[in-house]
Amino acid sequence: MSLVVVGSIAFDSVETPSGRADDILGGSATYFAYAASFFTAVRLVGVVGTDFPPAYRDLLESRDIDLAGLEVAEGRTFRWSGAYADDMNTRTTRSVDLNVFGEFDPKVPEAFRDSELVFLANGSPQVQLRVLDQITRPRLTVADTMNLWIETTRDQTLELMRRVDGMVLNDEEAVMLTGRRNLVAAGRRVLAMGPKFVVVKKGEHGSFLVTPTGVAALPAYPTDRVVDPTGAGDSFAGGMMGYLATQPVFDEPRLRKAIAYGTMVASFNVEDFSLNRLQEITREDIDRRLAEYTAMLAV
Amino acid sequence: MSLVVVGSIAFDSVETPSGRADDILGGSATYFAYAASFFTAVRLVGVVGTDFPPAYRDLLESRDIDLAGLEVAEGRTFRWSGAYADDMNTRTTRSVDLNVFGEFDPKVPEAFRDSELVFLANGSPQVQLRVLDQITRPRLTVADTMNLWIETTRDQTLELMRRVDGMVLNDEEAVMLTGRRNLVAAGRRVLAMGPKFVVVKKGEHGSFLVTPTGVAALPAYPTDRVVDPTGAGDSFAGGMMGYLATQPVFDEPRLRKAIAYGTMVASFNVEDFSLNRLQEITREDIDRRLAEYTAMLAV
Repeated sequence: MSLVVVGSIAFDSVETPSGRADDILGGSATYFAYAASFFTAVRLVGVVGTDFPPAYRDLLESRDIDLAGLEVAEGRTFRWSGAYADDMNTRTTRSVDLNVFGEFDPKVPEAFRDSELVFLANGSPQVQLRVLDQITRPRLTVADTMNLWIETTRDQTLELMRRVDGMVLNDEEAVMLTGRRNLVAAGRRVLAMGPKFVVVKKGEHGSFLVTPTGVAALPAYPTDRVVDPTGAGDSFAGGMMGYLATQPVFDEPRLRKAIAYGTMVASFNVEDFSLNRLQEITREDIDRRLAEYTAMLAV
Repeated sequence: MSLVVVGSIAFDSVETPSGRADDILGGSATYFAYAASFFTAVRLVGVVGTDFPPAYRDLLESRDIDLAGLEVAEGRTFRWSGAYADDMNTRTTRSVDLNVFGEFDPKVPEAFRDSELVFLANGSPQVQLRVLDQITRPRLTVADTMNLWIETTRDQTLELMRRVDGMVLNDEEAVMLTGRRNLVAAGRRVLAMGPKFVVVKKGEHGSFLVTPTGVAALPAYPTDRVVDPTGAGDSFAGGMMGYLATQPVFDEPRLRKAIAYGTMVASFNVEDFSLNRLQEITREDIDRRLAEYTAMLAV
């Protein structure tokens, strides 16, 4: 089934306990699309500046990522700079230059409007809602958000949650949205706000899937090879949605399997900066790691 | 196989976001022994004061817990008082009255010296080592510890680790012992210090099993029914060791299954104060929850 992602494309400068890298390819839509491309073709809607190199377009297109929705605007591409603390969990933003992304008003190309799966990567809920309005008849819509939007545009975030099928949140966002400190309780509360399922991501501690039939917990892939956590959440979502795009229905067992695939792709992604590690691996590597993960969970 | 536990028996006064309870039965050996009793007979070595009520002896003996090693010393039983913060993770100790436990010098009864499985609940490593010296030929020895001993008696803690087969640590202790912030790396480092396996407990986030063949991550049972986390770690260890006592060998798949059983027993234990919830359930309830957990992990 067709899958579209709307989100950011960025140049990141990242410092982690393992090293640093400057002006590397990043952004939520970038990580998502590359991750999903292990499973299916992807349609990308985003914006870059005139400084975006043709080589990066080629890289994405070589993965069957359709860039018909990639707007090139006069100016510079979004730039983000940040650093991770020793525990790799705490992230400090050093600078944000929205540049052309600041005025981003996504226009879904005519050819993408029939997309069956839609992923709304982190963005203002107003922009996310405008994207939804342009999709004719989606079969599965999933949105990400962030603390900024929950704080500053709570009403629109709640409206978004009533309109999508699934939400992907991290632990902090789930607590902030619901006021519940227990993440299972928080996930259940989010479900009561509209979506049919919620994924609560806990970074190195794995994730919860909350559906009307119950709660499932899945651990992260246990590894000490963490070079750069940037893009972990988006590559997780990409693996998850990419797998779902290959499935006839989106029932609870398939959602769990999708989360397992997302967990595997994210576990590769954090092993190097930018898309470097994902460029080294194949679908077979992902399936091999999933088999290892599945064996580990057979108790 | 025969299983002996050496640890504390206490009266706890606990305040949690769900309520408070005063002078309730607690202590590491108590929680461990009761949890293990769902699987096997248990031998207990500990000390209580003359204030320890016969009804509690009867309760433990009714579970096939052999109290031949329970010393009754002149004075009062160990008392602990503490409170949990809203997130149920941060615990503040309000008072500790060691009482008769302060002079505890465990004497393993003659009839317990042939014990095949040994669990050394949290205590000073000197005391734990003295217990080990009294066991003739153990087949599996596992120890718990705490930050206090790692800080104040590091050398003896390291000696203990060279002498036991397995360590059960929480995340904070693993980091403190090794200086590694990544828990997989910390677990591997602990393994290099002597034991054949290490379980790193992460509370609501589950646990890692680290063995020479690899690392397995298992999530906690996802629940929002947490009344009192006291005894979670010891009931986890009790379920784990109780299950292992029924097995012919202690290979990696059995260790994982043992951890899954420990996780289930702990998940019941936190649903009420003291042993209240464990007193309501049967082995069948544990197996039913394990089946649910296993299904959740089938990805």
